[in-house]
Amino acid sequence: MLENLKQRVYEANMALPKHDLIKFTWGNVSEIDRESGLFVIKPSGVDYDDLTPDDMVVVDLDGNVVEGDLNPSSDTDTHRVLYKEFPDIGGIVHTHSPWAVSFAQAGVDIPAAGTTHADTFYGDIPATSLMTEAEINGAYELETGNVIVKTFEDRFIDPNEVPAVLVQDHGPFVWGPNAEKAVYNSVVLEEVAQMAYHTMMLNPHNVHMSQTLLDKHYLRKHGANAYYGQKKTEVTN
Amino acid sequence: MLENLKQRVYEANMALPKHDLIKFTWGNVSEIDRESGLFVIKPSGVDYDDLTPDDMVVVDLDGNVVEGDLNPSSDTDTHRVLYKEFPDIGGIVHTHSPWAVSFAQAGVDIPAAGTTHADTFYGDIPATSLMTEAEINGAYELETGNVIVKTFEDRFIDPNEVPAVLVQDHGPFVWGPNAEKAVYNSVVLEEVAQMAYHTMMLNPHNVHMSQTLLDKHYLRKHGANAYYGQKKTEVTN
Amino acid sequence: MLENLKQRVYEANMALPKHDLIKFTWGNVSEIDRESGLFVIKPSGVDYDDLTPDDMVVVDLDGNVVEGDLNPSSDTDTHRVLYKEFPDIGGIVHTHSPWAVSFAQAGVDIPAAGTTHADTFYGDIPATSLMTEAEINGAYELETGNVIVKTFEDRFIDPNEVPAVLVQDHGPFVWGPNAEKAVYNSVVLEEVAQMAYHTMMLNPHNVHMSQTLLDKHYLRKHGANAYYGQKKTEVTN
Amino acid sequence: MLENLKQRVYEANMALPKHDLIKFTWGNVSEIDRESGLFVIKPSGVDYDDLTPDDMVVVDLDGNVVEGDLNPSSDTDTHRVLYKEFPDIGGIVHTHSPWAVSFAQAGVDIPAAGTTHADTFYGDIPATSLMTEAEINGAYELETGNVIVKTFEDRFIDPNEVPAVLVQDHGPFVWGPNAEKAVYNSVVLEEVAQMAYHTMMLNPHNVHMSQTLLDKHYLRKHGANAYYGQKKTEVTN
Repeated sequence: MLENLKQRVYEANMALPKHDLIKFTWGNVSEIDRESGLFVIKPSGVDYDDLTPDDMVVVDLDGNVVEGDLNPSSDTDTHRVLYKEFPDIGGIVHTHSPWAVSFAQAGVDIPAAGTTHADTFYGDIPATSLMTEAEINGAYELETGNVIVKTFEDRFIDPNEVPAVLVQDHGPFVWGPNAEKAVYNSVVLEEVAQMAYHTMMLNPHNVHMSQTLLDKHYLRKHGANAYYGQKKTEVTN
Repeated sequence: MLENLKQRVYEANMALPKHDLIKFTWGNVSEIDRESGLFVIKPSGVDYDDLTPDDMVVVDLDGNVVEGDLNPSSDTDTHRVLYKEFPDIGGIVHTHSPWAVSFAQAGVDIPAAGTTHADTFYGDIPATSLMTEAEINGAYELETGNVIVKTFEDRFIDPNEVPAVLVQDHGPFVWGPNAEKAVYNSVVLEEVAQMAYHTMMLNPHNVHMSQTLLDKHYLRKHGANAYYGQKKTEVTN
Repeated sequence: MLENLKQRVYEANMALPKHDLIKFTWGNVSEIDRESGLFVIKPSGVDYDDLTPDDMVVVDLDGNVVEGDLNPSSDTDTHRVLYKEFPDIGGIVHTHSPWAVSFAQAGVDIPAAGTTHADTFYGDIPATSLMTEAEINGAYELETGNVIVKTFEDRFIDPNEVPAVLVQDHGPFVWGPNAEKAVYNSVVLEEVAQMAYHTMMLNPHNVHMSQTLLDKHYLRKHGANAYYGQKKTEVTN
Repeated sequence: MLENLKQRVYEANMALPKHDLIKFTWGNVSEIDRESGLFVIKPSGVDYDDLTPDDMVVVDLDGNVVEGDLNPSSDTDTHRVLYKEFPDIGGIVHTHSPWAVSFAQAGVDIPAAGTTHADTFYGDIPATSLMTEAEINGAYELETGNVIVKTFEDRFIDPNEVPAVLVQDHGPFVWGPNAEKAVYNSVVLEEVAQMAYHTMMLNPHNVHMSQTLLDKHYLRKHGANAYYGQKKTEVTN
C-alpha cells in the first residue's frame, strides 16, 4: 500500500541527519496522497539507523492508523491538522534544528533580511503565540496544529508563500508540495535563521529587506513569471 | 570480571569523540554494577585511539582499584560520590563540551527554554556555587562530588529528573540509568546549552518556557503516563 | 569550444560545496577568456551532483549565449558588467556563504581587522548602498553589477586590491585573476567575516588594524616587492 | 640531516589542517634540535597536499638556511627569536585559527575562565601591544618575535607556564617542549578562546576563575606534584 510514497517519506526522513537538521530521533517527515486522503509518516522514537521504508506508518486524516506495526510519530496530530487546514501542501517536516529553535524559544519571528530568505519565504517566518494551559493539557499535538493555523490566519500569512512556522518554545514545522521539498525548505530555514541572528547582532537597526527586493526575489523563483532555473514555469516551494 | 560492563563502558567512552563532545582525552564515562557495588571507569589520560575494553578500571565505592593495570580517571572520586549519593543513577559522563563549559564558566544555569530541553531535563540545569579554597586544596575531586550533591539538595532538585550539573568554572557532569543513556543526555545538554545561549542573546526577556509546557513534554517521555516511542511504559532518562 | 576553460570553471564551481561556501545550487562561478571576450559560467539551478563540464555555458559580453543547451546562471548579467567594468579581473564567484551574507544583510562593511584580512584584501570590504526600486524592478541582475561598480567608484576602491563586495541584503560577489583564485578569495572572505564579527563583539572600540600593518601584509604578498612564497615575483590575488 | 626531526615537523604541520586550525597554507610549525642549534621549519606558501618531509627547511639561529631547496616560512625570524629568548621551548606553531585571531584582532587577552584553560595555561593568554610603525616597517618578522618576548617580560609571564601569545591584529604563536606538544597547545588555545568568548557574552561579570582553582588544575598536570595520567612524574605542556 502506497509503497512509492513510503519510500519517498523514508528517504526524506533519512535526509534530516544528512543535512545536520536533527540529533537522534528528533524529527519526522510525512507526505500525503491527496487522492486517497492518506498520509505516510515516520514511526515514533525509532533510531534512524534501524529505520526501513516498511516501518513507515499510513494514517488517515482522522488520525486512524491504516497500516503499520509501529506507533506513528507523536506529532502525527499536528501533521494531520496542517494537511486538513492547508489544502495545497503535500509534505511536512518537524525538526529541532538549533538556529530555528533558538528563534522559537525567544518567541521572535525570523525576519526577511535578505535574498537567501526571499528566494524561499515570502516574508517573515512567524513565531506562534504561546499555547494556553488548556491547549497544552488538552489534545496537545492537535492544538499545536491549531495554533499554527491560527497564527497564519490572524497574521494574514499564506502558508503556500511562507512554508514554515516556529511553534513558540518548541521548534519549527516546515512544509512544501511534497516531503522532499519540505526537507529543502527546512535546510533553508536553518540557514536563514543563522544569518538573521548574526545580522541582528551586527546591526539591529537594518535587519529587514525592502518589500521591493522581497517581491523581486520571491517572484523570480515562484509563480507565473519565474525565470530562475531551466524551465520558465512555476517553481513551487 | 564484569567483562560486559567493561565493553559497554568502553563503547560509551568511544562515543564521546564521535558525538564531538571531547577533544583528546578530556572526558570519562563510568557505569556501576549496583549488585556488587563496583563501577567501571576509563583510565586517566590514555589516547582514545589506544583505548581497549581491557584498559577499563574496576573501582569500588570506597575508591579502591579492584582490577586494572592503569590509574583510573583522575575524576574517579567525583563519580564515586555521585554513585553513593544518587542511588538511582547507573552511569556518569564528564566532558568539557564547549557550550556547557561556557555556561559553567559564566556560573549561569542553563534555563529550560523549550521542549528540546524539557524532553530530557525537568527544569533548569544548575551551575554549582564556587568551591571554597578548603575544598579545592583538600580532597578536590571528592569535594567536587560533594558540591554537586549539595547543589541538588539546597535547590530541591531531583537528580533523576535533572540528570546533569555544571560545576562552576569547570564543566558538566551528566548521568543516567546507564553509561549509554548518560552519553545521550550529554549530547542533549550540549545541544540545549547552544540553543539557550542564542535564545538569551535574541531575547533575554523571554527565555523560560512555562511550567505547564515543561510538565507536558517531560511527562510525555518520562514516568507512568509516558506515551512517546514504541512502548507505553516508562522511558527513563 | 573553450574546453579547457569549461573544465576549469566546472572545477571551480565544484569547489564551492567542498569549501562549505554554498548549500544546494546557491552559487556560481565564471571565468573569462579576454582574447575572445567570451566567458564560461555555470547553468542556472542545476544540482551540483548532476553538473558536468559540458553543461557550462559560453556567453559573450553582450549577454548572448554563444554555446550551451542550458540557461546560464540567472546572475550572468552581473558577471558581465563586472568583466566589462573591471578589465583586469578574470574570474568571478557568487555565493550565499553565511558570514558574508550576515554582513551584507546588516549593510556593514567587513572591516580590515587583522593580517588574515590584509594578506588578501587591501582595506575594508564594502557593502553596497541599497538598490533603488527602479533598479530592482528594471534589469535587476545588470543593475546589481552597476551598483557594485558605482560602490568602488564612489569610495575610490580599486577592485584589484579589494576583490570582493557585499551587495546589500543579498550577498557577496568575489573575483580574482581567474576562477580558481576567485574561489580562494571567497574562502578568505568567509573566514575574515567570521573573525571580524567576533572581534566586533569582543571589543567594538578596537576593530581596525593600522594602515601601516595593512600596507605591510598586503604588500608582502602583492606587487613588485612581494616576498611571500617560493617566487619573489608578484602574487596576484 | 636531521631526518627524524624533519619527519616530526612534517607530521606536526600536517596535523594543523586535520585539527581545523588552518585554511590553505596559513600556518607553520618548527622544532629545534637544541644540541646543534638548528631548527626545522615548513617552507613558505607550499600547498599542504604537496608537502613532503624532504621539503622541510633547516635553519640556524642566525637565520641562515643550512639545508633545503625552498624558502623557509616567511615567519622564520619570529620562530628564531622565540627559540633564542625562550631557552626551554622546543617547538613553535603559528596559525590563523579563527577564535584566537578574533581575540588577537580585538586586542583582548584570553582570560583564564575555567579548568579547560588551567589544565594547559597557567593564567591569561596575553595579547601583545600594537607594533610600532618602525617595527612594522623594519625587520618585521624579527620584531614580531621581539614584541612577544617583551610582552612576557613586561607582564612577568613565564613562557613555560603560558605557552601561547596573541600578536595583536595578527594571530597566535604557540609553543611547547616539541612540535607535537605545540600543536596540542594550539588546539587547546582555539578551544578555550571559543569557550571564553561565550562566557564573556553570557556573564561579563564572572569570567575569571579563582587563583586557587587555577593553581589546583595547572599543578595537577604540571610540575613535581602532578598526578594526572599514567605516570606520576612531570607532564610538561
